[in-house]
Amino acid sequence: MARIAVVAGDGIGPEVVAQARKVLDAVLPGTEATEYDLGAARYHRTGEVLPDSVLDELAGHDAILLGAVGDPTVPPGVLERGLLLKLRFAFDQYVNLRPSRLWPGVTGPLATVKPGEVDLVVVREGTEGLYAGAGGSLHRDTPAEVATEESLNTRHGVERVIRDAFARARRRERRKVTLVHKTNVLTHAGSLWARAFDAVAAEHPDVTTEYQHVDAAAMFLVTQPQRYDVVVTDNLFGDILTDIAAAVTGGIGLAASGCINPEGRYPSMFEPVHGSAPDIAGKGVADPVAAVLSAALLLDQLGHADAAARVTAAVAAELAGRTPGVPLRTEEVGDRLAGYAVA
Amino acid sequence: MARIAVVAGDGIGPEVVAQARKVLDAVLPGTEATEYDLGAARYHRTGEVLPDSVLDELAGHDAILLGAVGDPTVPPGVLERGLLLKLRFAFDQYVNLRPSRLWPGVTGPLATVKPGEVDLVVVREGTEGLYAGAGGSLHRDTPAEVATEESLNTRHGVERVIRDAFARARRRERRKVTLVHKTNVLTHAGSLWARAFDAVAAEHPDVTTEYQHVDAAAMFLVTQPQRYDVVVTDNLFGDILTDIAAAVTGGIGLAASGCINPEGRYPSMFEPVHGSAPDIAGKGVADPVAAVLSAALLLDQLGHADAAARVTAAVAAELAGRTPGVPLRTEEVGDRLAGYAVA
Ligand SMILES: CC(C)[C@H](C(=O)O)[C@@H](O)C(=O)O
Ligand SMILES: CC(C)[C@H](C(=O)O)[C@@H](O)C(=O)O
Repeated sequence: MARIAVVAGDGIGPEVVAQARKVLDAVLPGTEATEYDLGAARYHRTGEVLPDSVLDELAGHDAILLGAVGDPTVPPGVLERGLLLKLRFAFDQYVNLRPSRLWPGVTGPLATVKPGEVDLVVVREGTEGLYAGAGGSLHRDTPAEVATEESLNTRHGVERVIRDAFARARRRERRKVTLVHKTNVLTHAGSLWARAFDAVAAEHPDVTTEYQHVDAAAMFLVTQPQRYDVVVTDNLFGDILTDIAAAVTGGIGLAASGCINPEGRYPSMFEPVHGSAPDIAGKGVADPVAAVLSAALLLDQLGHADAAARVTAAVAAELAGRTPGVPLRTEEVGDRLAGYAVA
Repeated sequence: MARIAVVAGDGIGPEVVAQARKVLDAVLPGTEATEYDLGAARYHRTGEVLPDSVLDELAGHDAILLGAVGDPTVPPGVLERGLLLKLRFAFDQYVNLRPSRLWPGVTGPLATVKPGEVDLVVVREGTEGLYAGAGGSLHRDTPAEVATEESLNTRHGVERVIRDAFARARRRERRKVTLVHKTNVLTHAGSLWARAFDAVAAEHPDVTTEYQHVDAAAMFLVTQPQRYDVVVTDNLFGDILTDIAAAVTGGIGLAASGCINPEGRYPSMFEPVHGSAPDIAGKGVADPVAAVLSAALLLDQLGHADAAARVTAAVAAELAGRTPGVPLRTEEVGDRLAGYAVA
C-alpha cells in the first residue's frame, strides 16, 4: 500500500489537493495519506518552516503530494529556500519533471499552434547550478557592495539527469532530446553539460539529439513549441523555460510537476506549478487539473503506470468537454475527474 | 561630423548593413564611415578575432555599426567571447538596450495581442553577472569533474544601469519600470538588485515600479506583453527575456539592439539581434529592418533624435505597407526606407 504525505499548504492548496486525493482514492483505493501542516500559515503561527522532525517523518513516505505554499505576507525566500528547495535538496530530487501539453479543448495564446500539437516534457536538473545557495556579499549597503551567486555543476549531477532524460525519451514516440544551455558564454559549465550529453547520447543511438542556447530555446518555445519532445537543462534555465512552456500551453493553471529522486531512495514530491493564489482561495473556483495531473505523475513514479494513464485520460476528457467562459467549481471538477478515471 | 566604425561581418551582415548605411547617409549626410573586417571570415583567414590594434582604432570612433558575426564553422564561444563580449566589456557598454514593438502590419505569434499594443524596451545590464567570465573546472573529463560559473554583481554596476532605465522611463509615456530578477533563490545578487532598485525608485516618484521573478516575467511576456514599458534586468536574464520579447513581436528579424556606454567615454555599438543566417546569405532576401532600426538607436545615442525618429517612422511605413507572403528584396527595402526617411 502506497504511503503518501500530503502537504496541502496555503491558499487554494487545500482545495486542489482535496480533488487530487479524491482522484487518487478512486484509481488506487487504500492509499494511506498523512497530512502535514506546512507553509505560510504554520510559519506565521509558530515561526517554523520545516522542522527536522517533520523532514524525518516525510522521509518515511513513498511520495509527497503538495498543493501550494506561500503568501504575500511571508518575506521572499523564506518558504522557497526553507521548504521547497530544502525538500528538493534533502531528498536529492534531481529530476524536476515538467510536462507541457496543449490539450484539445484548451485555448493557448499562440495563433500558430493547434491543440494536440504540443507535447513536450522538460527534465530540469533539481539539485545543482545556481540553486546551490553558493553566494555571498561584501560591503553591504555601501557603494562598494559586491554580491555573487555561484553555479555549481558536477559531472555526477549533470550526467544522472541527462540519463533520466534519455530514458524518458526512449519511452516516447519521437525519441528526441534537446539539450539547452548557454555554452557560448557559460563555457565551463556549458562544456561539462555538452560533454556529458554527448557521452550519454552515444549510448542511445536510437534517440535524436539537438543542442540550443537558452535564448534561442526561449524564442522557439514561443514560435515552434511543436518541435520539442524531451528538453534537458539546468536548474535555472529549467525554471524559466518551464514557465514559458506552461504559458504557451494554456497557463500554469494546468501545469503539473514532479521533483523526483528516480532511485526511490528518498520520496519524490509532486505539485502543481501554480501558487497559492490567495485572491481566489476559499471560493471553490480554483482549477484542480494541475494538482490532479501532478497526482498522475506521482502514480507513474510509484509504478502505477496504468492508474496514471487513467487519470491523464480523465483530464483529457474533462478539458475536451469544457466550454470556454463557463466558470468551474473545484469540487465538481474533482468529482467528474474521479468519475472519468474509473469509468 | 559623426565618425562611425562599420563591422559588416559575416553572412547577411554586409547585405543588411549596406541598407542601414544607405538610410544613415540619407538622414545624416556626411557621416564618415570606416569599415573593419572582423568575424568568421577574418578568423579563418588569419586566426585573428579582435587584434588590440583594431580595438584601439575602434575606440576612436563615435559609434560602431555591426551587421552580424559568426558561422557554424567557428567553434562556439570564439567570436562571442573574443569579439562581441570583448567589445561590450572593453568599451564598458553597460546598457544593453533592446526595444520590442509589435508594429502595425506585422503578424506576431500571439492570438491575444493586436499590432501597436506592445511597445517595451528591455534595459539589460551588459558588463556584469554571469557574463563576467568568472568560472572554472576541476578534474575535467573524469567522474569527479566540477564546473563553476560565477555571477558577479556590484552596486556600482547595478545602480548605473537601473538609473539608465529610470531615465528612459521618464522619456516614455507610461513611465513604468519593471525589475526582473530571481530574488527568492539568488538571494545575494537579488537583494543587491532590489535594494539598488528601491533606492533609485525613491528618487523617481513620477515613475511607477514593479518587481517580477524571471520565471513569471518570461510567462507574462507571452501572455500579457502589453503590460511592460521599461524592463531592467541582469545580463543573463536580459539575454533570455529579449529573445522572448522579440519572438512575441514578430521575430528576431525585426529586433534591434544597442550596447551603450551612456557617458560616451567609449563608443557604443549597434547591431540587429539576428545572426549571420548563412543559409540565405548572398541571395539579397534578408530583411534589413533590424539593422536599420539599430541605426536609428545609433542616431538617438549620438544626439540626433530627430533623424532617429525619421528612420523609425520610415520603418513603420515600410512594415505597414507590406503584404504578408510577398517576398522582399534587401536592396529594395533599403531604397524604400531611405526614401521614406527623407520624405
Ligand atoms: C518557488 C521557487 C523557488 C521555484 C523555483 O525557482 O524552482 C519555482 O519557481 C518553481 O519553478 O518551482
Ligand atoms: C552571442 C551571445 C554572446 C550574445 C549574448 O549572449 O549576449 C547574444 O545572444 C545576444 O543576445 O547578443
